[in-house]
Amino acid sequence: VNAPHALPERSWVDGREAGEISALDRGLHYGDGLFETMACVGGGVRFLGEHLQRLASGCERLGIPAPDAALLRREIAVATAGAPQAVLKLILTRGAARARGYAATGEEQPTRVLLRYPGPLSVADAPEGVRVRIARLRLAENPALAGIKHLNRLEQVLARFEWTDPAIAEALMFSVSGALVSGTMSNVFLVRQGKLLTPRLDRCGVAGVMRAVVAALASQAGIDFEKRVLGAEDLREAQELFLTNALTGIRPIRDLAGRALGVGPLTQRLQHALAPLLARAAEAP
Amino acid sequence: VNAPHALPERSWVDGREAGEISALDRGLHYGDGLFETMACVGGGVRFLGEHLQRLASGCERLGIPAPDAALLRREIAVATAGAPQAVLKLILTRGAARARGYAATGEEQPTRVLLRYPGPLSVADAPEGVRVRIARLRLAENPALAGIKHLNRLEQVLARFEWTDPAIAEALMFSVSGALVSGTMSNVFLVRQGKLLTPRLDRCGVAGVMRAVVAALASQAGIDFEKRVLGAEDLREAQELFLTNALTGIRPIRDLAGRALGVGPLTQRLQHALAPLLARAAEAP
Repeated sequence: VNAPHALPERSWVDGREAGEISALDRGLHYGDGLFETMACVGGGVRFLGEHLQRLASGCERLGIPAPDAALLRREIAVATAGAPQAVLKLILTRGAARARGYAATGEEQPTRVLLRYPGPLSVADAPEGVRVRIARLRLAENPALAGIKHLNRLEQVLARFEWTDPAIAEALMFSVSGALVSGTMSNVFLVRQGKLLTPRLDRCGVAGVMRAVVAALASQAGIDFEKRVLGAEDLREAQELFLTNALTGIRPIRDLAGRALGVGPLTQRLQHALAPLLARAAEAP
Repeated sequence: VNAPHALPERSWVDGREAGEISALDRGLHYGDGLFETMACVGGGVRFLGEHLQRLASGCERLGIPAPDAALLRREIAVATAGAPQAVLKLILTRGAARARGYAATGEEQPTRVLLRYPGPLSVADAPEGVRVRIARLRLAENPALAGIKHLNRLEQVLARFEWTDPAIAEALMFSVSGALVSGTMSNVFLVRQGKLLTPRLDRCGVAGVMRAVVAALASQAGIDFEKRVLGAEDLREAQELFLTNALTGIRPIRDLAGRALGVGPLTQRLQHALAPLLARAAEAP
């Protein structure tokens, strides 16, 4: 499924074309950093403002000095130039360590890594929906890290290792306390008793850019919508289920661990509302 | 306190002297790897067998192919040659990604990073004990990752950022459920009602090499010892408290958040039992 995006065609470190980082980088030592995965279309980046805003918010949460947005936009413009369709991954770390140990000296310079993977994007690859499983591994809960797209992703790695069947697109994850959280690389929405619901992410999970876009669309459309603590029963009783992700937009779940689901009316309504946003010219960096 | 170990004097990647790793490394992207921090004395490595055993056990837990122990020993021998006292940090990751996303292709080659920091070691730098605070940040609980010395260390980074006073050596951390776990970079033992206790690490924390050494010493000495779920009351009621870490051995806590503690008889007994193990020739790689 991800074969088109196997390896990056070009990469940059701190604005220079390069493929290596310091072995002292705190991103490697501690996962001390953040990332964004962005859809590039026609030389622009879809929802670029939202991605940069989330990055800045992550920097504030972790106490990483936020890089100048204009600098990031210039580097992203260079990285996306000449790529009609691509996936751009930006990694921002606290930088190379200036001393051994967890403490920072305050003299670290954040490291910017840009990786451009070849397209095509997979936004429209599954309009009829995808097959999804339930992960056995449960997510730990820590309000201090909840919502942040940081580099501590071993839980997602181990959950993704639970299956190899390429027909399965994603796994839904619960937290250790039994709350539904997200997929390994997507957020989840469900419709229950006519109401659109998505898990609150104040104890774990990543607050996705596409999740925020869909939440705003639902609000504009007057759809009854709430972020709430959800559990296994909400999943069982859901009439509609879909995944969101910046690259794939809205992906209906048509099969959840063997249970067949149709693409329901609210999901379709949101897909139609999202389509023009995905089709419009992406924001020039 | 850590000034002697500010920056490595030499570094190796996959056996070659180098200071950079691939920007595609899964250690950077996901914290998908492990580390060991070892005390080098007189060309040998203290508790090398125990460190390599824990690394192998971490590899098994994370599904990383364990590197050949003889290869690691040869590379460690090169790294420690000519260094009478040094700290050696070994990072082992799942390797450079062969595809975008959390899934591994199975073709990844684990990356070995060796960093040699100049000594002297700080084993004997605080025989009279250290000042310790209580961290505000609490550790998330996940049995799937508990005990492993993996690279997802944002919680420790954020807890270490809570103080800058160099007179404070460490912070004790509780889990989100209120269990005492460890320091940010050490394990903790306490004596309560004549019994030596250390937290169980089946929900979070790192199973330290020095923790295992001290536990074995306690057992050999016939000391009443148990790994148990401990809480704030155990900490309040403790007559003795000490930290363990491969570099620093046993460090008594003489001041816990303003409460004065002496170096108690059981702590002294274990210090005396440990001393010959620290003084003996370190294991040649």
